[in-house]
Amino acid sequence: MVSKSSVKYIQSLQQKKFRDEYGVFVAEGPKVVPELVATQTFELIALYGTNQWLLEQEKSRMEISSGEIFEISQAELERMSGLKSPHSCLAIFRKKETIPPVPTDSLILMLDELQDPGNLGTIIRTADWFGVKQIICSPETADCYNPKVVQSTMASLGRVEVYYQDLRAWLAPRKDKILLCSSLQGVPLSDIEPAANQVLVIGNESKGVNASLLAIARELINIPKIGEAESLNAAVATGIMLSHLCKL
Amino acid sequence: MVSKSSVKYIQSLQQKKFRDEYGVFVAEGPKVVPELVATQTFELIALYGTNQWLLEQEKSRMEISSGEIFEISQAELERMSGLKSPHSCLAIFRKKETIPPVPTDSLILMLDELQDPGNLGTIIRTADWFGVKQIICSPETADCYNPKVVQSTMASLGRVEVYYQDLRAWLAPRKDKILLCSSLQGVPLSDIEPAANQVLVIGNESKGVNASLLAIARELINIPKIGEAESLNAAVATGIMLSHLCKL
Repeated sequence: MVSKSSVKYIQSLQQKKFRDEYGVFVAEGPKVVPELVATQTFELIALYGTNQWLLEQEKSRMEISSGEIFEISQAELERMSGLKSPHSCLAIFRKKETIPPVPTDSLILMLDELQDPGNLGTIIRTADWFGVKQIICSPETADCYNPKVVQSTMASLGRVEVYYQDLRAWLAPRKDKILLCSSLQGVPLSDIEPAANQVLVIGNESKGVNASLLAIARELINIPKIGEAESLNAAVATGIMLSHLCKL
Repeated sequence: MVSKSSVKYIQSLQQKKFRDEYGVFVAEGPKVVPELVATQTFELIALYGTNQWLLEQEKSRMEISSGEIFEISQAELERMSGLKSPHSCLAIFRKKETIPPVPTDSLILMLDELQDPGNLGTIIRTADWFGVKQIICSPETADCYNPKVVQSTMASLGRVEVYYQDLRAWLAPRKDKILLCSSLQGVPLSDIEPAANQVLVIGNESKGVNASLLAIARELINIPKIGEAESLNAAVATGIMLSHLCKL
């Protein structure tokens, strides 16, 4: 039996202000929860599971090194959940401390005011596919702990570092970085030679990359259009650019 | 003043069975509606707009060759709409007759049981960007007239032909087609030389392409993974493959 105040607390985590206040976030479902536990990136605070699901985890020996485990009914799960069709389990994890990103030698992805949580989740997963380890988001970008993002990244959120910080301030002292900005006016992507020290900026879904970043970019790059669509989805464009810039 | 029965009729079009029964579909909002009208692909049956929006259209001389126009209040729009935040206008268009696709010399995209309407919409838009004119969907694929698809394609639905038909039956008499199936086990995408007569198959989000198609494919192709994500989003994978196969 879960208390009313626990249900209320969990429901509140659908909102960013409460995730920030408590320093935690929610993940749901038998696919995402065990995978996020397995990455060992986030401290597990509490795990709520149906009787059957918890028995299955015992059999498969899911390793849990922290947190309390609660058995709940399907009705209780439905009350806590942010999903239309909640399924088997829900977990609360502690958000990571956000420390300023230490640049590595591999490509860094920057997101400039990307708004849609679904796009952000897909981009984190795509970055993980192409071995990108760091994503730096402008403060106006969607929250990576938004439940929609958590669900759509699968466990990639545990493998890719996502930071929020002023993009120009981060770039200012790092003159060795090669700044590439996606743009409808740029040179074709295939003209760009992949290289260490590249930073790729993807912009807002409707406005694109801010002028203040375009002004300091080494190159504006675009994906040549053959047909007539006005634009590409931001996550699709990110995937196409990373598939060229992150070669094995 | 819009009648109760009209509101009920429009609401019913959120469901496929009623779209099929009446042979029409709904598009919403000041971005999608005028663009779909401009493509002249679908016959406009009825256009509902707020007073201010209709005045703006008169000024910009949107060309409408068919259909009735109704002025409605914001409250009426909210009752008809399938969106959380309806905006300015809603239109009913007639679905196109579905005639069997006549193959052209350019790449054909096939979707094998693709389930998510958001993915389908993004794929139609991506196909339009890369100049793909024909998409053949297995009967189990999401409906291209689903409101979520219509909203996310922008007007690309008016420029790309989308057909539903048994994929193997369509391929059987067309031995000249080069069948490429996306797969986690295939050869790297970059090994494939773009050519006329290629057909690219994208599979279901979790199951991938059906075995019966994999069995007759010329090549299974994959997008090389550098990091650790389990899979790529279907629309992102489609974009990456088309960016390679549809070169200018």
